[in-house]
Amino acid sequence: MKNLVGACMFAQSGGPTSVINASAAGVFIEALGQENITAVYGAAHGIRGVLNEEFYDIGKEDMAELELLKYTPSSALGSVRYKLKDASVDDTDYKRIVEVFKKYNIRYFFYNGGNDSMDTCNKISKYMAKSGWDCNVIGVPKTIDNDLYGTDHCPGYASAAKYIATTVMEVNLDAKVYDTPMICVIEAMGRNAGWLTAAAALAGHKGLGADLIYLPEVAFDIDTFVEDVKKVCAKNNGKCIAVVSEGIRDKDGKLIVELVGSVGRDSFGHAQLGGVAATLANLLKEKTGYKTRGIELSLMQRCGAHLASKVDVEETFGAGRAAVKAAVNGETDKMVCYERQEGSEYKCEYKLLPLELAANTEKTVPQEWIINNGTYVSDEFVKYALPLIQGDCKAPLEDGLPRFAKLKKVLVK
Amino acid sequence: MKNLVGACMFAQSGGPTSVINASAAGVFIEALGQENITAVYGAAHGIRGVLNEEFYDIGKEDMAELELLKYTPSSALGSVRYKLKDASVDDTDYKRIVEVFKKYNIRYFFYNGGNDSMDTCNKISKYMAKSGWDCNVIGVPKTIDNDLYGTDHCPGYASAAKYIATTVMEVNLDAKVYDTPMICVIEAMGRNAGWLTAAAALAGHKGLGADLIYLPEVAFDIDTFVEDVKKVCAKNNGKCIAVVSEGIRDKDGKLIVELVGSVGRDSFGHAQLGGVAATLANLLKEKTGYKTRGIELSLMQRCGAHLASKVDVEETFGAGRAAVKAAVNGETDKMVCYERQEGSEYKCEYKLLPLELAANTEKTVPQEWIINNGTYVSDEFVKYALPLIQGDCKAPLEDGLPRFAKLKKVLVK
Repeated sequence: MKNLVGACMFAQSGGPTSVINASAAGVFIEALGQENITAVYGAAHGIRGVLNEEFYDIGKEDMAELELLKYTPSSALGSVRYKLKDASVDDTDYKRIVEVFKKYNIRYFFYNGGNDSMDTCNKISKYMAKSGWDCNVIGVPKTIDNDLYGTDHCPGYASAAKYIATTVMEVNLDAKVYDTPMICVIEAMGRNAGWLTAAAALAGHKGLGADLIYLPEVAFDIDTFVEDVKKVCAKNNGKCIAVVSEGIRDKDGKLIVELVGSVGRDSFGHAQLGGVAATLANLLKEKTGYKTRGIELSLMQRCGAHLASKVDVEETFGAGRAAVKAAVNGETDKMVCYERQEGSEYKCEYKLLPLELAANTEKTVPQEWIINNGTYVSDEFVKYALPLIQGDCKAPLEDGLPRFAKLKKVLVK
Repeated sequence: MKNLVGACMFAQSGGPTSVINASAAGVFIEALGQENITAVYGAAHGIRGVLNEEFYDIGKEDMAELELLKYTPSSALGSVRYKLKDASVDDTDYKRIVEVFKKYNIRYFFYNGGNDSMDTCNKISKYMAKSGWDCNVIGVPKTIDNDLYGTDHCPGYASAAKYIATTVMEVNLDAKVYDTPMICVIEAMGRNAGWLTAAAALAGHKGLGADLIYLPEVAFDIDTFVEDVKKVCAKNNGKCIAVVSEGIRDKDGKLIVELVGSVGRDSFGHAQLGGVAATLANLLKEKTGYKTRGIELSLMQRCGAHLASKVDVEETFGAGRAAVKAAVNGETDKMVCYERQEGSEYKCEYKLLPLELAANTEKTVPQEWIINNGTYVSDEFVKYALPLIQGDCKAPLEDGLPRFAKLKKVLVK
């Protein structure tokens, strides 16, 4: 399918990241310069914007604002968590998508998201091929969780990792300021994959990290945890910093947060987690009598664009451009991914991966990188992650605060 | 008391800030250059370091590391919360301090802290005068709470305010990303003074703030709060961002956190707060059925040096230098403070305030700046605070992470 001529549609889906809009900027800026692309649209709230015929004319935006998207956190077009049914069960949504694509002559479709969104993208891609409407579909990855299969790392991960590592360093200095015992439990996101939690080891690499790191890849035992912390305290004047994943589970797979409270679920059936740090901090206070503090890095770890990694921003912008270039060159049914190159200097190149391989997979931290009886990660992790968090890159200041992109969001009617 | 010749002792006390070490850098660098100062000491863990004869020889430190202190959060010498008894009741500690000062010929004493620390500093100053040991005592203010009397603002406040404002902007974008209801409750520090909580209005000034802001200066009513949030949600597609102080109390002065759980107390009898955001978020979930999220800015707001205000860093460094200059010029029993100058351009000058006026006072947000039935702050606040958060100023990067100061901490024996 070469030389398609028509409009392109870009949509953002799933939880946002600090740099997700850098891919939007990449797609928009590249698409606006492509001869075969006759109009550039951005869907409001992901696939729902397509279904509702609600999307913006990106051609009406100022280029300076599109450039600022690189430094603007959260999904500028709005996001959605909407699970498409299997087309074999109910193809209502798919028919509607084809209808909208035909009406606006949409020949290129770019979907930006994580595992679930790549599933959506894959389903649309397959239906599009079946329907006979020529449209090149490319997935653009995004997830702070870093758990997509087939890519060296995921756009957005490095900035979140940099936020976590920097914050752990700062909290380390703060938590150790008194000459009295203090236990600090810091909670990072990552439902099933411990990549974010492991980022605390980057702070450790600089000498200001955590004493203990617990990933969801290893069964968590509360009693062993309390003993681990007590041992660190005994060596360390009553001081201990532990970083835990929100997704830690016991040996039966039961979430530690569920052992102590109720947990909501989103429309994909995923538990809405959080509160582990506070829970464990309270428990440790009871068990040790020491002062404790639970710290949840909450939304800040995924929206803290002021701490974005330059490598991440540039790669993520490039991933958007690579998606457009690939589609215009006739590629479809693929996801853009990163391939790390051999050599002493860090370098990634863009590759394409069949969408079905990216959809619904989860890449977790290798077991061999998890050391000290499941309480730390090895230098292999640091070697992997350190190149990704290099450099600063953030929005210009206006009145001492970030000047984020302001889109006009002109609806296409 | 002019022309004292001898050593100087500097100590840090109370909760740290992102920029407290900038004052340490100011004191050290200025003192090392003063002819009349024969040695520069830094006490380990505040006044306890003096009592225990545990202090570092700052003359042994590298100047480059002392410069890096400007960008290094938390108290580099260690801090303490130690309440000196009234000398009239028990002067054991005071006698010990004079003994140590005589032993090391300490003729200059600088104490860096908030209200409680200025109380300590005041007591020492008064006792020193009574004891007949000539020693010039100057307090160097520090508190993210911004609640010290007699100074336009407090070193450390602006950087915490900048952290809060920037984070509220980023969370605002993140929390509004879905087309479904979402209520976010963000908790800022400030036991009795709402200056930090009010900083959310700076984000509002940039169009990405909070809908509701609740300071501890106004009695908090839970039912009214729920109604306030529901009204915002009704106008706003179920979306609302509320920023609350950790110290909000009901009309009877009972802490909202105490209405729902237990609260520890520190050695000054102050409640150890936190958890209000989570509590209110849970309550709102129950009352509205909407998705809610409680976010506690926790230690990050006071140690997030990567977001320090340049104005704050420079002023705080200058406050340390001003303290030394004043002491060498024969001043004693004073605290350095900031006096804002008239004129369209922001400028503060250093002044001296008698220590007894600074000790144990609390400056809260003026009632006339609190508007909308206690749910927001006026433009007067923004006009006051905006000049303070200007400019970025942070540690250089090393491996993509901040390179904080590393002191040798050579103990004086």
